[in-house]
Amino acid sequence: MKAKIYVTLRRGVLDPQGKAITASLGHIGIGGVEDVRVGKYMEVRLHDMGKEEATRRLDEACRRLLANTVIEDYRIEVEG
Amino acid sequence: MKAKIYVTLRRGVLDPQGKAITASLGHIGIGGVEDVRVGKYMEVRLHDMGKEEATRRLDEACRRLLANTVIEDYRIEVEG
Repeated sequence: MKAKIYVTLRRGVLDPQGKAITASLGHIGIGGVEDVRVGKYMEVRLHDMGKEEATRRLDEACRRLLANTVIEDYRIEVEG
Repeated sequence: MKAKIYVTLRRGVLDPQGKAITASLGHIGIGGVEDVRVGKYMEVRLHDMGKEEATRRLDEACRRLLANTVIEDYRIEVEG
């Protein structure tokens, strides 16, 4: 089974990478972009298990390894 | 207006970061995860413009700045 995980900076946390991208887009002539915030996106393949069990394990994975919950939020989407 | 951009490694391109995460999850006792592939996720805020125009600009942004199209694919979702 498959799942997707999105890790994003919490609102209010400065995102220098996103600011650099926003500025660079202007510099290369791509206008109209006001703000970019950069996060991580993970595609996960798991053994078949219940959807709730998969969500429970990935939630633990996010809290313990994949996200820094002081400055980052995460969202889990288990497919099927 | 808002948009989301997903940049992922092309199928067949080795993802050492994903492999490291997969192994680490096993080591900390979170089982059942077969594979993880890591990509980038961007939340973009743009001036109001047509949805097609926004897609066109972000497509150009991906090709010229945000993705390495030799090894990465990208997907753009313009909201509204």
